[in-house]
Amino acid sequence: MRAEILSIGTELLLGHITDTNAAFLAQQCAPLGIEVYYISQVGDNLDRLTETLRRARDRSDLVIMTGGLGPTEDDLSREAIAAVLGETPQVDPALEAQLREFFAGRGIQMPERNVKQAWVIPSVTPLANPVGTAPGWWAERDGKIVVAMPGVPSEMLRMWEHEVVPRLQTQTGATLFTRILRVAGMGESTVEERLGDLIHIENPTLATYAKRDAVDVRITAKGRTTDEARELVLAMEERARNILGEHVFGIDADTPQSVALRLLIERGLTLATMESCTGGLLSSLLTDVPGSSAAFRGGAVAYATDVKALEGVPEETLATYGAVSVETARAMAEAARARLSTSVGVSVTGVAGPDEQEGKPVGTIHIAVASDGKVSDTSQRFRGARTEIKWRAAITALNLLRLHLLR
Amino acid sequence: MRAEILSIGTELLLGHITDTNAAFLAQQCAPLGIEVYYISQVGDNLDRLTETLRRARDRSDLVIMTGGLGPTEDDLSREAIAAVLGETPQVDPALEAQLREFFAGRGIQMPERNVKQAWVIPSVTPLANPVGTAPGWWAERDGKIVVAMPGVPSEMLRMWEHEVVPRLQTQTGATLFTRILRVAGMGESTVEERLGDLIHIENPTLATYAKRDAVDVRITAKGRTTDEARELVLAMEERARNILGEHVFGIDADTPQSVALRLLIERGLTLATMESCTGGLLSSLLTDVPGSSAAFRGGAVAYATDVKALEGVPEETLATYGAVSVETARAMAEAARARLSTSVGVSVTGVAGPDEQEGKPVGTIHIAVASDGKVSDTSQRFRGARTEIKWRAAITALNLLRLHLLR
Repeated sequence: MRAEILSIGTELLLGHITDTNAAFLAQQCAPLGIEVYYISQVGDNLDRLTETLRRARDRSDLVIMTGGLGPTEDDLSREAIAAVLGETPQVDPALEAQLREFFAGRGIQMPERNVKQAWVIPSVTPLANPVGTAPGWWAERDGKIVVAMPGVPSEMLRMWEHEVVPRLQTQTGATLFTRILRVAGMGESTVEERLGDLIHIENPTLATYAKRDAVDVRITAKGRTTDEARELVLAMEERARNILGEHVFGIDADTPQSVALRLLIERGLTLATMESCTGGLLSSLLTDVPGSSAAFRGGAVAYATDVKALEGVPEETLATYGAVSVETARAMAEAARARLSTSVGVSVTGVAGPDEQEGKPVGTIHIAVASDGKVSDTSQRFRGARTEIKWRAAITALNLLRLHLLR
Repeated sequence: MRAEILSIGTELLLGHITDTNAAFLAQQCAPLGIEVYYISQVGDNLDRLTETLRRARDRSDLVIMTGGLGPTEDDLSREAIAAVLGETPQVDPALEAQLREFFAGRGIQMPERNVKQAWVIPSVTPLANPVGTAPGWWAERDGKIVVAMPGVPSEMLRMWEHEVVPRLQTQTGATLFTRILRVAGMGESTVEERLGDLIHIENPTLATYAKRDAVDVRITAKGRTTDEARELVLAMEERARNILGEHVFGIDADTPQSVALRLLIERGLTLATMESCTGGLLSSLLTDVPGSSAAFRGGAVAYATDVKALEGVPEETLATYGAVSVETARAMAEAARARLSTSVGVSVTGVAGPDEQEGKPVGTIHIAVASDGKVSDTSQRFRGARTEIKWRAAITALNLLRLHLLR
């Protein structure tokens, strides 16, 4: 099925908002077996909108529109669809009653112009919108489908998931199941290379995405039933895990910090941090997780070199190896534990830039994790801007913490 | 001048990336006196790209393209422009030499397919790209302009500002000057309301934008010369500053953290933090600023209540007022200073959620700044998700630090 996405609204052409709806919808189409050939943003102008919609409907099987379903004169999606199909809008009494009820429930008199949101044309099946006033339109005729949804992302999202996807699955005959494997300690191209031929299989499909905190491997299968699709995904997940091994740290909504904290909490362990170049980013990420206080007790940001000594790093270590050294990282992890009497300590030291330090180049990072009788460490060199280096160092520390706990 | 924006790349149609370039360019066009009528995203397919470009050039005076200038077979913007104009690409020896130099400077042999990036056609003036390998194209013929820039946002941005805008200004006869006033401690709607009628003036234009770390008031003036435009902006800036007062914390690229650090460094002061609910986000933001080590010595993340005592908050304060109290915030700021012997200490304590704490509701935040003989504090209640509350608390702390230093 060939599709086209149209986003409607002059605010898009003025750059006042970024079209995140289109990217979301495009991402959703591929696993449904729908190919997106064009995406366009058009203003609130009936001629241009009608012209664009007509062309889109001519060259595609499915046109997915967002926006232009509000109650004002500038909201013209219904008018454009009616013009392209040559049909005349009429008020649907059931939709009008729902609309009046929606306003009554909020103790407001419905403005009369809103009655436009109860319009339908003969080819349209209205799509429910329990979170807003504008019902969507599913306009199907001559083997072509035009779907119109509200532009407000939360309303669009709900309508897409509950009203549009089930209808599209009926059309394409597909039920989908998706699982994301989250991968740490490997770049996207390495992940892709290791997965090799798995990437080219058609069902399930595998695709890699570089996210800020991981590389995602998204496995999506199509089946006649959800169970069939899930079985296909689980079999493929096992093959991918055999290849990627302990680099797979979690699935779906897991984050490096949520996984590390879960391991700590399961084992009844507590955690303290000591950070230099990451400046508190590592502890901030940890405390983004609800319930992190069950394991995370606190940390120190030992930014200046003499502060590292104040926080318990031996002066001798600092003098011998320098503040940016694996020896200092190890001493910082031990000092972190000792300061706050925790089971585990994790540390980061390095050079975030823009200038080198102690003759060590920008991007040099040393990380250590210490627990009773065991210290793990890693030394890396990252490229990029200061904030990028901080971020990669913090994510690498969370991964080392996970591996330390698993070993 | 009527314009159209085309973003090229199959990754856009798959939803792998969101088209932020188009929104940026759309925003830039309005003050240049350029009206954007359509924005489209097209895949890496020569037929569809050529068709879309031809239509765009037919109905607009200016087509702004991004993407498709890479060296691979999938990068087809040059081919499409050549096809639409009926001209044949040839290698430009000067561009080829630059390209080879770029690779040599990185100690890499240039892959031969890259020579495509040195192509020109007779109607094209190449646009310099000192931060990447792909020069842009300015293709002008028959009173129509097609501009092609790289899709990488940093390369596009530089080329737009340095190469394209000056040429467009020559075309539209307008010279622009823009200044952004960065506003803290006030929501976007309040800023807009206070600015009142200034918002409706046509030259300079004022527009407000809610950013994560501030509300931006963007003042843009058009003039026959840069001096004329600058004068208009400066006069308007004064009027806006008279209204917004000390809420204006900086201009253009200033951030809450860069401004606070600059004040500290100018005064020869040093800083330490102590954070509870922000978990290190405040110190991480401070250390995002290059050169922050000139003032920032370090901090403590005192997450568990007993850690606050360990870090120097009197047990009595904690017992009497609780960990989430303005008294504890003040004691934390004093303890931060004392621990690391700094001139100034700043602290945050509160409830980031999802559950209330000590009977205090989610979003309760207490912040304090202590310096020799003076303590400032603020108590607020923020709404939103956990990470949103952390962020707003950290930004509010940076603003209190600035105001404390100014008073």
